[in-house]
Amino acid sequence: MLEGVTATNVRLPLTPLPRPRSVLFAPGNRADLVAKLPRSAPDAVVIDLEDAIPADPDAKTAARPVARDAARDLIACAPHLNVFLRVNAVHSPYFEADLAALTPELAGVVVPKLESAQDVQQVVDTLRTRGLDLPLMAGLETGAGVWNARQIMEHPAVGWAYFGAEDYTTDLGGVRTAGGLEVLYARSQVALAARLAGVPALDIVVTALNNEAVFREDAGQGRALGYSGKLCIHPAQVALAHDIFGATPAQLTRAR
Amino acid sequence: MLEGVTATNVRLPLTPLPRPRSVLFAPGNRADLVAKLPRSAPDAVVIDLEDAIPADPDAKTAARPVARDAARDLIACAPHLNVFLRVNAVHSPYFEADLAALTPELAGVVVPKLESAQDVQQVVDTLRTRGLDLPLMAGLETGAGVWNARQIMEHPAVGWAYFGAEDYTTDLGGVRTAGGLEVLYARSQVALAARLAGVPALDIVVTALNNEAVFREDAGQGRALGYSGKLCIHPAQVALAHDIFGATPAQLTRAR
Amino acid sequence: MLEGVTATNVRLPLTPLPRPRSVLFAPGNRADLVAKLPRSAPDAVVIDLEDAIPADPDAKTAARPVARDAARDLIACAPHLNVFLRVNAVHSPYFEADLAALTPELAGVVVPKLESAQDVQQVVDTLRTRGLDLPLMAGLETGAGVWNARQIMEHPAVGWAYFGAEDYTTDLGGVRTAGGLEVLYARSQVALAARLAGVPALDIVVTALNNEAVFREDAGQGRALGYSGKLCIHPAQVALAHDIFGATPAQLTRAR
Ligand SMILES: [Mg+2]
Ligand SMILES: [Mg+2]
Ligand SMILES: [Mg+2]
Repeated sequence: MLEGVTATNVRLPLTPLPRPRSVLFAPGNRADLVAKLPRSAPDAVVIDLEDAIPADPDAKTAARPVARDAARDLIACAPHLNVFLRVNAVHSPYFEADLAALTPELAGVVVPKLESAQDVQQVVDTLRTRGLDLPLMAGLETGAGVWNARQIMEHPAVGWAYFGAEDYTTDLGGVRTAGGLEVLYARSQVALAARLAGVPALDIVVTALNNEAVFREDAGQGRALGYSGKLCIHPAQVALAHDIFGATPAQLTRAR
Repeated sequence: MLEGVTATNVRLPLTPLPRPRSVLFAPGNRADLVAKLPRSAPDAVVIDLEDAIPADPDAKTAARPVARDAARDLIACAPHLNVFLRVNAVHSPYFEADLAALTPELAGVVVPKLESAQDVQQVVDTLRTRGLDLPLMAGLETGAGVWNARQIMEHPAVGWAYFGAEDYTTDLGGVRTAGGLEVLYARSQVALAARLAGVPALDIVVTALNNEAVFREDAGQGRALGYSGKLCIHPAQVALAHDIFGATPAQLTRAR
Repeated sequence: MLEGVTATNVRLPLTPLPRPRSVLFAPGNRADLVAKLPRSAPDAVVIDLEDAIPADPDAKTAARPVARDAARDLIACAPHLNVFLRVNAVHSPYFEADLAALTPELAGVVVPKLESAQDVQQVVDTLRTRGLDLPLMAGLETGAGVWNARQIMEHPAVGWAYFGAEDYTTDLGGVRTAGGLEVLYARSQVALAARLAGVPALDIVVTALNNEAVFREDAGQGRALGYSGKLCIHPAQVALAHDIFGATPAQLTRAR
């Protein structure tokens, strides 16, 4: 660990989620969509206060109580579902207020754009001031986040991580392309660092909806690199993710 | 910063060059070609004493006064053009004598094959003994240069950098191929380190002249990775570079 | 070097093997195949106690004296051939007993799955307790091995290294694919670290036998990255490796 970062006693959930194949997102301001999250049977779900809500103080403020209530209702209805809530980045103006939407029954908190182990510790410390002791799913989606991927994931509060290709590319001043070679280095480094930290990593979002072939191709790349599963932004992506990531390495090797 | 490397007071030019899309080279021993550099309207130009001049003491000696005079004439004729001069590598037998070709009116000095922050500091210290206080464009084009890319670019004297694929591959005992996958790791790492150091990075030279499609493909890769622009070795490459790197990420994303 | 790792006085062989183009493996329990190793004229050969022998204590025990005698016979018959023996990984239950199969006449010991400079030192110390002072060919084929590739190869006892794609991918929970992009990051990093450590690196095994085109394509990628040659698992791969890796960079560049 880095100097100055003290070990924490954050506990992983009682029913741990070892290698999620699918993590399905819904906007935090849409109780109707949150309630439907279990229908596609994802391994985990995320109620989102970050990208799904406009970067506007009023919109963020309005979304928080909706997200909190929707989370509680969902957990009550689906007690075995791993329900996460995504807050805004720790250095954003929304982070502290977002914590009001968290409840101890969550499986964890998704924190986007983490850039260092110090960032992780700051999240943990802030959660504690609210009496919250939730494990984190760490978003690695900036240059610093990818560079420091190993130290971030080795923080004991981090239980899972994801790589965000769109934000990473934007941070570097680059452009996303169909082939994806512009993120192969970063995507590979996060997979390697995740292995060394002992943390399952979720692979990049596929933004092209209604295109099964593109999703399968991209998920196959993530699977080959060692990712445990996919961030999903549409319910139809969940079954595809289970199909790709549920297969054993031996099965996939045989098929090539 | 590394221990033993002290901060410097090198100043970036009064008219800074934030993200050059094109940096056009001309041989330092060809005053005629140097005089024509502005014609293609590049964002910056380099008068070259390294690769463009044979690795022969007499050739290097003969080129220096030609390069110096050509630089002064060019700056007088095109006072708003960012004019750089490339010296030979700091550990080469030509480096110290090359400094005689520098003038304070230059936008900066291009230093090839930098391998550490200590190398950068040695360049800065040597420039100071000549009363020169020019910012550096750092050439990252060896194994050590790529490995130490971040520390090199974080030195405060470095204002820009470039990745050199031909020299990098030669240094590793490898071979350049059409697909370029042999440099994807290094090219990606330099782009990431440049982002973290806050330095614009120039992408690799395309040696195939008179082949617009090859240049566009290669420049598109560099643009996707986050490079600000291209090193250009032919005036016809400048307009192509502006076309590719001048496009906004949104425009390019829409086009894929 | 890492703290706690002391320099060793391991000597490289009297006839050093600077950049092997081919390293041909034979199972340590097959004296007949070991005897035939010189026929394809490889630059080096490896008598294998690791992957070629089932991971079963009885099989390992039975193979050791066969491998030792086969090694001695081979060295006697082909005194100018660089003969290596591969033991099992240092933290495996077989490592210490495997050392009984080593003889001082070997060109070196191949040690798979090395993960740190401390691992290397432990091998060196254990060899010394047996009076053995052989240089190592380091297997880099796990997440930790790739992450620590430079420190491992900078240990003075390491004379050569290889990258193992199948084991690396398995360690990360990934899958091998025909295109091989899932190991491009690791394969590139090992090549770069090998250059900086001054150690020749051997490229990945091609498991598809009887397919010359696949071998040539894959070897060409390794050659482009800077690898010195190929690990070969079939005699027919040796001539192909010499054809690809024996060509000079200039020849290969011209051919593209
Ligand atoms: Mg994001
Ligand atoms: Mg160069
Ligand atoms: Mg292996």
